[in-house]
Amino acid sequence: MGDLSELFAPGRVAVVGATEREGSVGRAIVENLIEDFDGEVVPVNPKYDEVFGLPAVADVGETDADLAIVVVPPHIAVDAVRQAGEAGIQNVVVITAGFGETGSEGAAREQELTEVAEEYDLNLVGPNSLGIMSTPKGMNATFGPENATSGNMSFMSQSGAFITAVLDWANDEGIGFKDVVSLGNKAVLDESDFIDAWGTDEQTDVVIGYLEGIEEGREFIDTAREVTQDTPIVLVKSGRTDAGAQAASSHTGTIAGSDQAYEAGLEQAGVIRAESVQELFDSAQMLANQPLPDSKEIAIITNAGGPGVMSTDAVGDSSLSMASFSDETLEEFSEKLPEEGNIYNPVDIVGDADNDRFSEALDVALADENVGMALVLTCPTAVLDYEQLAEDTVELRKEHDKPVAACFMGGERVKPAAEILQESGIPNYFDPSRAVFALDALSDFKDISRREYDEPTEFDVDEERAREILESVKGRDDTRLGVEAMGLLDAYGIETPQGDIIDSPADALEVAEDIDGNVVMKIVSPDILHKSDIGGVKVGVEDEDVYDAYEDLITRARNYQPDANIIGVQVQEMVDLDNGVETIVGMNRDPQFGPLLMFGLGGIFVEVMEDTTFRVAPVAENEAHTMTEEIDSAPLLRGARGRDPVDVDEVTETIQRLSQLVTDFPAILELDINPLVALPDGAKAVDVRLTVDPDEL
Amino acid sequence: MGDLSELFAPGRVAVVGATEREGSVGRAIVENLIEDFDGEVVPVNPKYDEVFGLPAVADVGETDADLAIVVVPPHIAVDAVRQAGEAGIQNVVVITAGFGETGSEGAAREQELTEVAEEYDLNLVGPNSLGIMSTPKGMNATFGPENATSGNMSFMSQSGAFITAVLDWANDEGIGFKDVVSLGNKAVLDESDFIDAWGTDEQTDVVIGYLEGIEEGREFIDTAREVTQDTPIVLVKSGRTDAGAQAASSHTGTIAGSDQAYEAGLEQAGVIRAESVQELFDSAQMLANQPLPDSKEIAIITNAGGPGVMSTDAVGDSSLSMASFSDETLEEFSEKLPEEGNIYNPVDIVGDADNDRFSEALDVALADENVGMALVLTCPTAVLDYEQLAEDTVELRKEHDKPVAACFMGGERVKPAAEILQESGIPNYFDPSRAVFALDALSDFKDISRREYDEPTEFDVDEERAREILESVKGRDDTRLGVEAMGLLDAYGIETPQGDIIDSPADALEVAEDIDGNVVMKIVSPDILHKSDIGGVKVGVEDEDVYDAYEDLITRARNYQPDANIIGVQVQEMVDLDNGVETIVGMNRDPQFGPLLMFGLGGIFVEVMEDTTFRVAPVAENEAHTMTEEIDSAPLLRGARGRDPVDVDEVTETIQRLSQLVTDFPAILELDINPLVALPDGAKAVDVRLTVDPDEL
Repeated sequence: MGDLSELFAPGRVAVVGATEREGSVGRAIVENLIEDFDGEVVPVNPKYDEVFGLPAVADVGETDADLAIVVVPPHIAVDAVRQAGEAGIQNVVVITAGFGETGSEGAAREQELTEVAEEYDLNLVGPNSLGIMSTPKGMNATFGPENATSGNMSFMSQSGAFITAVLDWANDEGIGFKDVVSLGNKAVLDESDFIDAWGTDEQTDVVIGYLEGIEEGREFIDTAREVTQDTPIVLVKSGRTDAGAQAASSHTGTIAGSDQAYEAGLEQAGVIRAESVQELFDSAQMLANQPLPDSKEIAIITNAGGPGVMSTDAVGDSSLSMASFSDETLEEFSEKLPEEGNIYNPVDIVGDADNDRFSEALDVALADENVGMALVLTCPTAVLDYEQLAEDTVELRKEHDKPVAACFMGGERVKPAAEILQESGIPNYFDPSRAVFALDALSDFKDISRREYDEPTEFDVDEERAREILESVKGRDDTRLGVEAMGLLDAYGIETPQGDIIDSPADALEVAEDIDGNVVMKIVSPDILHKSDIGGVKVGVEDEDVYDAYEDLITRARNYQPDANIIGVQVQEMVDLDNGVETIVGMNRDPQFGPLLMFGLGGIFVEVMEDTTFRVAPVAENEAHTMTEEIDSAPLLRGARGRDPVDVDEVTETIQRLSQLVTDFPAILELDINPLVALPDGAKAVDVRLTVDPDEL
Repeated sequence: MGDLSELFAPGRVAVVGATEREGSVGRAIVENLIEDFDGEVVPVNPKYDEVFGLPAVADVGETDADLAIVVVPPHIAVDAVRQAGEAGIQNVVVITAGFGETGSEGAAREQELTEVAEEYDLNLVGPNSLGIMSTPKGMNATFGPENATSGNMSFMSQSGAFITAVLDWANDEGIGFKDVVSLGNKAVLDESDFIDAWGTDEQTDVVIGYLEGIEEGREFIDTAREVTQDTPIVLVKSGRTDAGAQAASSHTGTIAGSDQAYEAGLEQAGVIRAESVQELFDSAQMLANQPLPDSKEIAIITNAGGPGVMSTDAVGDSSLSMASFSDETLEEFSEKLPEEGNIYNPVDIVGDADNDRFSEALDVALADENVGMALVLTCPTAVLDYEQLAEDTVELRKEHDKPVAACFMGGERVKPAAEILQESGIPNYFDPSRAVFALDALSDFKDISRREYDEPTEFDVDEERAREILESVKGRDDTRLGVEAMGLLDAYGIETPQGDIIDSPADALEVAEDIDGNVVMKIVSPDILHKSDIGGVKVGVEDEDVYDAYEDLITRARNYQPDANIIGVQVQEMVDLDNGVETIVGMNRDPQFGPLLMFGLGGIFVEVMEDTTFRVAPVAENEAHTMTEEIDSAPLLRGARGRDPVDVDEVTETIQRLSQLVTDFPAILELDINPLVALPDGAKAVDVRLTVDPDEL
């Protein structure tokens, strides 16, 4: 997508469908635009000579505008966009509803709109949008009742109504925006385009948004990774829960991807995910105005012990930790604080603390090299002037260039002080836990901005052999593959136990004799899914019993289902489960994010404890390694309870190789290696199941 | 503790230490008291004839007061309290600080204060208290800058500063209180006393509080259980996290109990635990004013799809569920709502909804029998009058007598409507997730108020035999016991494997011959903790090998530590681990709550996954049973992955029997049955370890 700077800073805006008709969207747009816009507004409407005193033209082609806002009814909106394109207008916002959100006719209309936009290479917002705003140009090209005040956050939302609610609240709180975009149906421009644009916009310091879906997951990850090296992105992605996902799907008409994919994708993208409106603004305000901390060590300075304890609990819930003060700091506190106080963190300067004691204590704490950030936490007292404390806090924050959050508790008494703080970029939080949450987000972003995104390793693999195996499903009704596809793993360098699938007892013996020790024998048939239930698995078979075992397996299969398609019998090396840990490496394909990798420990850990982790493929070595670390049961891989650690590097490599396989072959819809037995030295994929889409081959 | 009604509604209040001196606590108290108090104030101060025009007396004994507020310095405060007691004044609030919170001298003074209070059977609040308030009498007997407005919540706090912050905020929000108590050091009256008093107070509909510690855990549980049959209790108990617990301990000077004990105790007490100030008031406001829901099914009515999805996510996070509407409701919605809307839950009545459509939709939803409660969720639009909607919401809530929460989103625009809602007991929440959280708390309390607290089962046990075994530690340095104490379990009817501890190979053989099948043999020595490491455990020993095995175990023990105290060898029946599930039942003694029971699955589940649950003993059958259900790994007990279920009833009974044992014997400081092997039929305690305090025997 091209440069969006003209979309937000046009010299001339055409309103296609401008009117003075009471209660109409066309009127609201023109009224909002002419209020503050530092540019020209051209009404387009063949019915009028002028609208609100502005000379109107009949056709958007006559306007020579940089941006066209389209509010005409849906059946003529596409034509209006085409005319804009023909006239060389590059930026279009389609306010009109009645497109993809309304059934098949609307969907066809939206398709047409997209094609027109592509033909003329348009930056098109919408359709079904509330419009856009950009405060530097004083442009309110929405039909909402509120205008944004100026600020350094840019805000996109898939819900127009949410924008009006947020602006009403934000204006009240003194929170401003640079650009605001109602995304609408995202026929052309989507969240990634705006993230990209705001990432290079010098006036945008934080990107925030409300999303119900992300269209192109991989593009989103790549774009957001780039942007979050400098600019924080905080998003509410709703549909987190099953109930919510169902509601989102019915609201937007899109297929809901799994929240596991969103969770993984947002994490990989470096996006800070907020779970509520409050979390969104609590963290965004901090990110918009404060320097990043040098460490995760927080100092809490308070005149009230109780709230001090509550805020310490909040620190315990976060990734931050309570700063340990240097000896010099402790000495200074000892000198300056009364004996009843607490010189350790949280620093209790006691209820009779006046402004001097408060600011002195804050100064001492912020000067300590062990302190990365501070929380100023107060309850109202007769001896404390809140406004003075606010001013001192602002001063000291600047002087020490460390982030500071405020929790001046109370109601009416706090308001003037809260305004002083807010104006200087120090949010005042009602509740200490919210202040700590916001500081934690700031610290998270510090980590994100320092991330190094490695390229995925490219392993040398036998892609052709893999393709041949996958192509075996062509022409079949059942496109699932099982152990007969172990060669697929082998082709991608994933170690499998020694062995083969054969179809005679003599061959079985030959394979078994090549293998050291006893073998495992399993019936191989797409018609027999639960082999163990029919006695279709034999463990620890000695060479001398292989012949009989073969015959017995075939007999059992035939007895179970006379017409079963029996591929043969797998004869496999015994894998040493006693010294190994069973893991599962899986993958399914998400509609938005594509291949989603899963890792967990086998059996109960995945099935009962649901102890799993997900990443969007392809993954780099460090991402794959993190997967092996972040499950709760990870200590079992690293030798818990006196056992030897297993070869985590080999597990990591298997995840990466699977990542490459499923990235190379979009035809693989889902795949499970279960178990992948992680051994003290190496890891072996004992069984595999996958489903193939032959049309993608 | 006696009746506290006079404490909160005295006819005459004496202020011991009353003065007009600027900036003094004695002045602040008198000023606050005389402002609104519907009663008489008597200043007590030998230095003055009058204080603020009120005739002063020299001695509290001359006042004939119902309540004395003591603000004189610590060294004379105890005498003042004694004089009050002598004069028959039953209620005393000690504002004065300088007691237990300030070191050993203060602690001695506090002890003296407690003794005086006991002697005269005083209702004593404090010392080190901000004071108390009671709005029906207009009594503000605190030295804080704020007075409470009238309401139906009673509030206690271990932090006086927090009270001032809360009142400033609450007055601003129109939130009122019946009584407010600053608990101070809780030398006499503590949280349980006030819970008890407010439980029978007709003007208190909700009890809320901020606590840093609970003194008498069992008393607290018993009191709160009784009260929460009718009156909800919502508490912030800080020190939830390790960091917070440390801070709480240093703030109050008390030994911190484990948060596991608090979590269990509060749950068993029927208390709703809030994790932050915001959660406290969000839920308390709902509980103070709304009827309890008939079901957990919530209907969401909104004019904004996006926030509708967000609130559905919040429902997904809660114990509530989205109501499924009846056919009649769906039909009515189909008729009344525009086609673009959504007649399913969350009901989207679309952005152009006017007040009629909104209230009609809410009416229809609340009339549905499947709907237990509703959330009214709106974003500002040009066609919607917020104030009218607030009035309609209030009306419909009353009419249907179902709980309704409001989330009218926005800032300035919302305020008048929010006031209308608030006045009628419908809190308006900034964020839909907070509204859902509060409704969830309401529904939680419904469950709590319906709880039946069974009496713990009293099993027929051999207490004498148990005592003898425990007494074996008397006179020993090491007061730990191991397998040699298996008889303790046996005495309390907890099944143990067949077998015995013997000290000769011949006896070993005799025991082994009595046991069906092979046996397990283990060295028994308090000096050898890790038996397996020295080869001190032999599994599957056949009768013919028992003799040699005995000799070998003794030799290994001697080689490992020549002077080890070897009690003998345990010869035990083999427990069928293949068909069993290893569990752990443990107990330790908490300083506040006493015996704390733990249950979890053996090995990795407790050690790596930390999948455990706790209850304060004694527990009834249903509580013990819940413990076996609420761990994450509980499905493994009930036959996950194709295995047979184990005998959960027997596990439940073992927990109850252990509960009885540790309740009968305070001398048991900690005890672990590890493993308790749960079998398809029965459960066997294979090993035990405990620590005994002989002084408690």
